Amino acid sequence: MIVPDSHPRRQSLLLRERVAAGVKSGFTSSVGLIAHGRGEAFDYLLGEETTPVAEAACRAAAAQLLLAERPVLSVNGNVAALVPEEYVALGKAIPAPIEVNLFYRTPERMRFMEAQMRSHGCENLLCNEDARIGVDSERGKVDARGQAVADVILVPLEDGDRTEALKRAGKFVVTIDLNPLSRTARKADITIVDNIVRCVPLMTRFVGDLRDRDDLEEITRSFDNKQNLRDSLQVMKARLDDTHSVD
Amino acid sequence: MIVPDSHPRRQSLLLRERVAAGVKSGFTSSVGLIAHGRGEAFDYLLGEETTPVAEAACRAAAAQLLLAERPVLSVNGNVAALVPEEYVALGKAIPAPIEVNLFYRTPERMRFMEAQMRSHGCENLLCNEDARIGVDSERGKVDARGQAVADVILVPLEDGDRTEALKRAGKFVVTIDLNPLSRTARKADITIVDNIVRCVPLMTRFVGDLRDRDDLEEITRSFDNKQNLRDSLQVMKARLDDTHSVD
Repeated sequence: MIVPDSHPRRQSLLLRERVAAGVKSGFTSSVGLIAHGRGEAFDYLLGEETTPVAEAACRAAAAQLLLAERPVLSVNGNVAALVPEEYVALGKAIPAPIEVNLFYRTPERMRFMEAQMRSHGCENLLCNEDARIGVDSERGKVDARGQAVADVILVPLEDGDRTEALKRAGKFVVTIDLNPLSRTARKADITIVDNIVRCVPLMTRFVGDLRDRDDLEEITRSFDNKQNLRDSLQVMKARLDDTHSVD
Repeated sequence: MIVPDSHPRRQSLLLRERVAAGVKSGFTSSVGLIAHGRGEAFDYLLGEETTPVAEAACRAAAAQLLLAERPVLSVNGNVAALVPEEYVALGKAIPAPIEVNLFYRTPERMRFMEAQMRSHGCENLLCNEDARIGVDSERGKVDARGQAVADVILVPLEDGDRTEALKRAGKFVVTIDLNPLSRTARKADITIVDNIVRCVPLMTRFVGDLRDRDDLEEITRSFDNKQNLRDSLQVMKARLDDTHSVD
């Protein structure tokens, strides 16, 4: 399927194809396709651009990941489909290992995920399930070298149960979620309401820019996640008011 | 995959799995999965419940279907995945035949659709493509006993092109669409902004309740679709505005 250069929704259609390709390759679940559609609707309400609100959250997240003693980047099927290279670059910049974290976990999908991430240059990849967070069965499994001992975890496009379990385990949780009303968005310590394809490269830039600053703690302390979420909601509401009328 | 009973988004996850199962069975397209995800986002903004606004539209729709001389219920891959039994029950209650209507139509998918609907008790199923509405190639094909001669057509989760073709052909179009901004939502005569899994059983109840009323025409005449759509948008805006949602 070729998307014409002139198509007004070209970027959005290309992203769809990346997720569909992930399903075909076996590491993205078909339910991930649904999650992607949901993200599309919220991104539309954002104007499909990184808002100043999201940029502030992304900067605070970069500072927190630099402050961490044991940062971990969690990767699932949609992240691996949408930003494999960019995610590996972020891991190298911090530096932080990347841990595979599948909601629908099977040995086969784990192998496909590993292949996808390694083929995009990932060297520091954690795939074990030899530890546990939270009480929930399969989805509580984590790598003993990764999330189990991490202090700051980036979990983009995450399920609410998992986020809550990470919080209960005392982790500092950073997420990227287009839905400012999701449980993950509300429970995380820093929520970046943005499309992951725009957000991850921006975070890598912030990591580079902030690395030598001595006010990283001040940057994260002054960030108010609840206010930031309210501001994102206002952006979406204004767009519903603004561009769409029923005539 | 088993969704835990305790998961707060259990209902939503189960619906996802029904659509994913439709793809696996071959009658739902993978693009239908993305569409389902977009619907989920709008349902989120509705509070995942049937609003009084949607209920009013659903009641008017039931009245119009009872008034029709030749009502037809159109079924596509997402409808067949989400509410096969409930849709058959609605068809029996009115009564009205159900016509298969696929955006991506292949003989194989038509066979799978037929099997899905018949296995859920559908006896009055129309699958021919021996007539045509509108100017558009493949997607203009309809059954000569169904949409071609129908006066009132229920087309849930419908593409805008198709809705416009039905309107040009002089049909009274009723739709169920979670996105009040879609072309289908704006072009239909009655648009119910609701999740189809809640809406179809409700419509069946209205059909039962209204059947013997002699003021059906008054009920449909007093319904203002554009105002109803504006009211649905207001519900969504109010939810985005609700500061309690970020507490």
